[in-house]
Amino acid sequence: MSSSKPTTSPVSVPEAVVNRLSMYLRELQHVVAAGKPTTSSSQLGRRLGFTDAQVRKDLAHFGHFGHPGIGYRCQELIDAIRCILGTDRQWKVALVGVGNLGRALLGYRGFDPQGFEIVAAFDAELSKVGNEIESVPIYDIARLREVVSAKQVELGMVAVPAEHAQAVADQLVEAGVTGIVNFAPVTLKVPEGISKVGVDLARELEQVTFAVANRLRSAEHGAELDQTEATKTGS
Amino acid sequence: MSSSKPTTSPVSVPEAVVNRLSMYLRELQHVVAAGKPTTSSSQLGRRLGFTDAQVRKDLAHFGHFGHPGIGYRCQELIDAIRCILGTDRQWKVALVGVGNLGRALLGYRGFDPQGFEIVAAFDAELSKVGNEIESVPIYDIARLREVVSAKQVELGMVAVPAEHAQAVADQLVEAGVTGIVNFAPVTLKVPEGISKVGVDLARELEQVTFAVANRLRSAEHGAELDQTEATKTGS
Repeated sequence: MSSSKPTTSPVSVPEAVVNRLSMYLRELQHVVAAGKPTTSSSQLGRRLGFTDAQVRKDLAHFGHFGHPGIGYRCQELIDAIRCILGTDRQWKVALVGVGNLGRALLGYRGFDPQGFEIVAAFDAELSKVGNEIESVPIYDIARLREVVSAKQVELGMVAVPAEHAQAVADQLVEAGVTGIVNFAPVTLKVPEGISKVGVDLARELEQVTFAVANRLRSAEHGAELDQTEATKTGS
Repeated sequence: MSSSKPTTSPVSVPEAVVNRLSMYLRELQHVVAAGKPTTSSSQLGRRLGFTDAQVRKDLAHFGHFGHPGIGYRCQELIDAIRCILGTDRQWKVALVGVGNLGRALLGYRGFDPQGFEIVAAFDAELSKVGNEIESVPIYDIARLREVVSAKQVELGMVAVPAEHAQAVADQLVEAGVTGIVNFAPVTLKVPEGISKVGVDLARELEQVTFAVANRLRSAEHGAELDQTEATKTGS
């Protein structure tokens, strides 16, 4: 028996699984773009450096997606994963902070195809206000509540200096966003019922140095290299 | 019995644990900066939105760090985590691609305190070559191998457009780096023994929408809100 509908009941799955769902989604989109209608857990895994068992186990959290003798129908699995991730529709996003990082985020090509549209940007520096970057209008941060509400923004990206991040997050929550992605190097407090993810760029480097240091320790101990450490995350 | 030395034998731990180690490290650094010499798993957990059991379980992968009647000595635990993460020394980093994102990375204040020094940047656009940004010299990408070798660079950050990312990664590996952090929206192939982490900014947003969508599904099903989903990642 196979079913292409994801389980819609609430599921509690590890963060790392959700992370890998995003990676499967991107890979499936590449496969479709290459004109192939179907794929398999081993093909998908090989492209990303995971075992086929890992791919099947991750997807099994949400339902049964394979078809006997066929494997996965790519578009069907794409639709299912987008439904699971909540990106089977567009999300309106506001960016706060138009410094170098904010500008990079406005220019980032990866958001739109995945269902994220930055509809407004905010900055406290009045010389930036009134301009557009990548067709996104920049507003005075004093107007955050009004604009977020008028444009029905649901998600906020915080790209301001650490000392302003909590105040900005508070304003976003008051204005009605339901989720925040924080790029400032500080831990934000948000009320219950608001989702948040922190992006700490040094943390990504530490994942790499951990793997390198671990490999050196393995070598010192004469142990086999742990391949799963060497290639544990894709991209 | 408690020991402040981390286990130095090779360990295979989930990526999410390594991620949380980085978060504990940042929080401990804040506690020390606030003048407090000791802390506890419950204090540490509360600040980051984790249970004390989670903190203890994560650290138990690497050794025993608590002292009866005292808790954690912050500086001791900081030193141990840095040793585990491999950041008990400075790492020399090269950045490839000096667009908006590259410029944001050069201006990012979070790398240096954690042990990462960007010592060289590369770009193919000759108008950028010869300049410095944030005291980092920008070189012609044609000189990548020579400069990486001369400056003994160990890690590379790839911030070029997707279509150039694999070629850049290949050059970095040839030049001798042992780890790569990739910001381009593409899956890189690297040889065995080279560590890589992919930073996909849309993935961070998808973590948030997954939590929001999950909460909506929970509400529809009349289930209790899953607090661990709402605040599952810190910062």
